[in-house]
Amino acid sequence: MGTGSVGQTLASKLKSLSHQVMMGTRNVAEKLADKAKDHYGNQPFAEWYKDNGEINLGTFAEAAAFGELVINATQGVNSVNALRQAGPKNLSGKILIDIANPLDFSKGMPPSLAPELSNTHSLAEEIQKTFPEVKVIKTLNTMWAGLMVNPDMIYNGDHSNFICGNDAGAKEKVKSLLKEFGWKSENILDLGDISSARGTEAILPVWLRIMGTKQTAAFNFKVVS
Amino acid sequence: MGTGSVGQTLASKLKSLSHQVMMGTRNVAEKLADKAKDHYGNQPFAEWYKDNGEINLGTFAEAAAFGELVINATQGVNSVNALRQAGPKNLSGKILIDIANPLDFSKGMPPSLAPELSNTHSLAEEIQKTFPEVKVIKTLNTMWAGLMVNPDMIYNGDHSNFICGNDAGAKEKVKSLLKEFGWKSENILDLGDISSARGTEAILPVWLRIMGTKQTAAFNFKVVS
Repeated sequence: MGTGSVGQTLASKLKSLSHQVMMGTRNVAEKLADKAKDHYGNQPFAEWYKDNGEINLGTFAEAAAFGELVINATQGVNSVNALRQAGPKNLSGKILIDIANPLDFSKGMPPSLAPELSNTHSLAEEIQKTFPEVKVIKTLNTMWAGLMVNPDMIYNGDHSNFICGNDAGAKEKVKSLLKEFGWKSENILDLGDISSARGTEAILPVWLRIMGTKQTAAFNFKVVS
Repeated sequence: MGTGSVGQTLASKLKSLSHQVMMGTRNVAEKLADKAKDHYGNQPFAEWYKDNGEINLGTFAEAAAFGELVINATQGVNSVNALRQAGPKNLSGKILIDIANPLDFSKGMPPSLAPELSNTHSLAEEIQKTFPEVKVIKTLNTMWAGLMVNPDMIYNGDHSNFICGNDAGAKEKVKSLLKEFGWKSENILDLGDISSARGTEAILPVWLRIMGTKQTAAFNFKVVS
């Protein structure tokens, strides 16, 4: 779900691992007609899509129906709406990996967190509450997309990725996928149920400040003890 | 400012480094008469104080007047009140190291952040706004007190401590003190002005979840790239 640079990075990686991929968007025709660069200056989606011929594009509903496993890479404040378009029936019983963050750009830069989706709540919990038949797993949301699918890019891959969710079996399946991405078991920290996403989503504010200081997104946190 | 376990840890370390230390509290007589253990089960302050003869105890105002440098180790949601009792005149022109976090225990465990002091604001900014003549430096608030003053306790001391504040000279003086505590320059990450404390205070929610999972507070984050 989502066609931005994060969705593109995940889709490319999944394809390279020989998974079948359908990306979901609100309106397929509009998305392919949009020739504007995104606000980070990345190439228009249509160009990227042409260069990545084996990746399919569908509506949110089509992609949700297609997927055995669904990844939410939409903008956090719009995620629940996007998933409503995907449809509860198409999502029911499936694992949804939520890598989005509820960033609020309306109060200046760097963005803050949407008040209604933070502190005593979280985006992941809101998704789980709205779609009780979905197995929501929060992971990978605390880092740049490049590192999500290629942790070895820095520090020999020895840095931390958190995982939160209510369903133990779903967590194990997601951990398998994370290992395909290059994550070592000992670097995947299980923080417990989906309410732990309150903590991992709240990393974004300091992540953004560190990125501003270091002028690169190619960093991560390693929990050491 | 503050006589809890964090204040005690800082006071002991400063004393061991041959600094003169006065701890500040609301009411000296009441504090010395209080024979209750704190809610972590630590010994009553009066016992600790008796065992640490060279550390002085005064009111917030006396301690603020005494100090060349002031450390805020009060409970975050009460810090502005405590500092008002310390008195703007006693604090004026001084460096205030703010190591507190605005934890809100009123909405269940683990605590959340006080809404009025988080996300688009922070405790450190509120202190700086309330006391414009004070040089507020936020640091050390993202870890257990034992590590603040003894980073070598884990991972050869190679983990990260953030520093935020508006006054470059004050930052340098605080960095010198951090080096006395054992912090290496390369592990002190300057995130910019005091508004960066919005990021570092927001680490607490995930810190608390990790502590709950690991069942120890002797861990920290290392920013790797």
